[in-house]
Amino acid sequence: MFESAELGHSIDKATYRKEVPQLRASLLDAQFELRERGKFPIVILISGVDGAGKSETINVLYEWMDARYLSTLAFSAPTDEERERPYMWRFWRALPPKGRIGIFAGSWYSSPIAERIAGDVGKAHLDQRIEQINRFEAMLANEGTLVLKFWIHLSKDGQRKRLKALESDPRTAWRVTQASWDRLKTYDKLQEAAGHVLRMTNTPWAPWIVVEGTDDRYRSLTVGRVILEAMQARLAAPQARDFAVAAPIVAKGDSIDVLTTLDLTQKLDKKSYETQLAKWQGRLADLVRHPAFGKRSLILVFEGSDAAGKGGSIRRVTAALDARQYQIVPIAAPTEEERAQPYLWRFWRHLPRVGRVTIFDRSWYGRVLVERVEGFCSEGDWLRAYAEINDFEHELHEDGAIVIKFWLQISDEEQLKRFKEREEVEFKRFKITEEDWRNREKAGLYHAAVCDMVDRSSTSSAPWTLVEANDKSFARVKILRTICERLEKALLTEKTKEKEKD
Amino acid sequence: MFESAELGHSIDKATYRKEVPQLRASLLDAQFELRERGKFPIVILISGVDGAGKSETINVLYEWMDARYLSTLAFSAPTDEERERPYMWRFWRALPPKGRIGIFAGSWYSSPIAERIAGDVGKAHLDQRIEQINRFEAMLANEGTLVLKFWIHLSKDGQRKRLKALESDPRTAWRVTQASWDRLKTYDKLQEAAGHVLRMTNTPWAPWIVVEGTDDRYRSLTVGRVILEAMQARLAAPQARDFAVAAPIVAKGDSIDVLTTLDLTQKLDKKSYETQLAKWQGRLADLVRHPAFGKRSLILVFEGSDAAGKGGSIRRVTAALDARQYQIVPIAAPTEEERAQPYLWRFWRHLPRVGRVTIFDRSWYGRVLVERVEGFCSEGDWLRAYAEINDFEHELHEDGAIVIKFWLQISDEEQLKRFKEREEVEFKRFKITEEDWRNREKAGLYHAAVCDMVDRSSTSSAPWTLVEANDKSFARVKILRTICERLEKALLTEKTKEKEKD
Repeated sequence: MFESAELGHSIDKATYRKEVPQLRASLLDAQFELRERGKFPIVILISGVDGAGKSETINVLYEWMDARYLSTLAFSAPTDEERERPYMWRFWRALPPKGRIGIFAGSWYSSPIAERIAGDVGKAHLDQRIEQINRFEAMLANEGTLVLKFWIHLSKDGQRKRLKALESDPRTAWRVTQASWDRLKTYDKLQEAAGHVLRMTNTPWAPWIVVEGTDDRYRSLTVGRVILEAMQARLAAPQARDFAVAAPIVAKGDSIDVLTTLDLTQKLDKKSYETQLAKWQGRLADLVRHPAFGKRSLILVFEGSDAAGKGGSIRRVTAALDARQYQIVPIAAPTEEERAQPYLWRFWRHLPRVGRVTIFDRSWYGRVLVERVEGFCSEGDWLRAYAEINDFEHELHEDGAIVIKFWLQISDEEQLKRFKEREEVEFKRFKITEEDWRNREKAGLYHAAVCDMVDRSSTSSAPWTLVEANDKSFARVKILRTICERLEKALLTEKTKEKEKD
Repeated sequence: MFESAELGHSIDKATYRKEVPQLRASLLDAQFELRERGKFPIVILISGVDGAGKSETINVLYEWMDARYLSTLAFSAPTDEERERPYMWRFWRALPPKGRIGIFAGSWYSSPIAERIAGDVGKAHLDQRIEQINRFEAMLANEGTLVLKFWIHLSKDGQRKRLKALESDPRTAWRVTQASWDRLKTYDKLQEAAGHVLRMTNTPWAPWIVVEGTDDRYRSLTVGRVILEAMQARLAAPQARDFAVAAPIVAKGDSIDVLTTLDLTQKLDKKSYETQLAKWQGRLADLVRHPAFGKRSLILVFEGSDAAGKGGSIRRVTAALDARQYQIVPIAAPTEEERAQPYLWRFWRHLPRVGRVTIFDRSWYGRVLVERVEGFCSEGDWLRAYAEINDFEHELHEDGAIVIKFWLQISDEEQLKRFKEREEVEFKRFKITEEDWRNREKAGLYHAAVCDMVDRSSTSSAPWTLVEANDKSFARVKILRTICERLEKALLTEKTKEKEKD
């Protein structure tokens, strides 16, 4: 979920200087219209990793907007007054009235996430809070409030660097305390808890926007732009409840993304390949025969550009498996029977029993890839599919299945080369069709769809592994290694998981 | 929530004989259109109290409809195949395809409710399952499925009678087992768990319809009519997701309701009144000074017809309280500051601290009463208000507040008499306005709104008490007694509650 916010997004000084004056003017205009005509409240949550620049972001918003109609609400330990009333009372008191903007530094999310990290509440309690929050925010939206929730993200390394930088500058050193460093230790827990909370509370009426916090200019400009666009869209909407932000969950703002940052030149020489292949296939053979696997199941998902080498990779995996233990499910256009059911139905029917492996050669992600790009379903359909797919994979994970998803990426040139090879080699010709050539023309659309897919469906329980597949050997070994490592981790931590379920 | 389904609804033989042929013909037509043109699946859940006539209902549907396109899915203990896959797998397998109707006798609700009654899962786990169910049903609806959920209800006494009747008839005696009688013992737990589950999963896209099960003809005809109306509405809807059932959660079908069944002739003579008043005021005075009340708070809601005697009743309550301990909040039209906020905001601000009492003279129910009837808000606004109000009161309850709600009902004649008195008595004249006379003309609309309100917002944590208020003495004593009894129960069971929270 946070993949796209760890790429080192940045905006150079010149661009920033050019863009800010225009953005400020537009923000002030929108604010004026909000007071005069819009007359709805705006709730902006600024949340995220410590040291990611949350307070700097709020300061910039004050600089850019009309501060008379902004209010910032910070919440520390509850007062006596607050403790003697329901949890939400302090937030109700702080809601901005119509025509105004309330910026929440800390919110109704702070304590559920903090308590989850501290281990004070179990998964079920967290989900109970999530349900309450969703109902509360739906009410706000129905009452006309525009709700925008920002999560300012830093990679673990980014957080460490940021704290060091703050500490070494005498003007900001006071902001770094022992507690800040302590929180670095719980970084992974925060990512897991926050990932789950963001996923479950990312609704059309109160969306999350994840922003990388490393670069001040990028962060400020991105937050400002998203607020402006949302205000303008909402001001133009005829009715409050017709409005839904379609913004991607991870804010973009420059040209780099999870695919362009892949190093496709990585390769493996023949000898290393053979050694490594044998090593990981052997490891995999042992793991699927491990007694602990008898209580789990393995679901492998292979997606990738045309001719990226899915089939070859799958064969290298199945070589390590017993034929009675696995099933390969190739996904093409749905059958008539399948079309008469919800689109996830045809995947549910193929779920493996415990101790078994199902390999999906293409998968439910078709809905947010080919169906999106080719217009086989409506925008509403593929937009809601991210949440439905996440729910599906979460259910698999909670039931003990290990879900591993691969995206095989090759460069344009490499694809062209492989297409031509296929046409020339007699026994490979069946693999290449007119459609493959047509798909190439839509490469840009597919590229965007893949980035969105990774951002919106990479979760701690079912993360995406992006595979640099220009070199087939490199790709196959990376895939086998990833499977072994995930399996080892899952089978070893099984007991902990069982315990938490209770 | 089940109030309207305990009134002894029934339909006489002649009406039934007249209506059934027409209903059957229409159902067959709708089914034909569903296959030929509609091409969406219908999922019908038949759930409810044991012995309430669930299987009889299913049999009647088979008789009335084209059985070739119906399938009934019953779920007992999961098979090996099913146990080795996620919980929802068996239900996915059973989903009806487009153009067909699947009747679920037992469903994804069965095990969460059963486990809650058995005490195997806590509140948080139940809410977690509820969230998953809501997401699943939203997906079904988005995929085009029409989802109708029936809850066949019996009062506790009704269930006992029904089991006895089944047992005494040799043709049905086999259906009553020891387990049936055991379930009677857990009746109250079932009502509480089911009430919560129904409330939280009653969505516009998958609504619950509560049907009283006592009378076979009433039950069959009501279920048949609701299915027909929903099918016709859905077939007429241009798009699947534009469709929402606006049916009241408790199915009606004859002329009796929670207000018409009140016995307004009840009265108290002067001497009994004085004794009882003193007794309950004394009891109340003790209770609010009880140490256990120092950790709780009390919220009283008074609603009622004009001139029903709210003010006089409130004065009899406050007579038992210390002036520093309570606050009366009279609710009239909202102020400008209040109008700039969500409608519940002005009630949140007046929530009492622990050890205190807030008395609302009219309340948040204005939205589903006066605002609904007078058109001060849109239909969508008051329809969603039931859920928002239930969430609000649930939050108060979970936080330890004791919420007691009174509806004071007087007859038309009594109201007219009081209005005239008010006009004649100088010091009462301020109490009667043109508006009061206008409201009388809308008595029918208010009547319907009150019935809906009681059905949709009487919950186990914040039930409505309907007060027969033609006789002021009777009403005042009933109110004081109700407050004392609820307080006693709450303060005595406090420890149990605290324990469960952990």
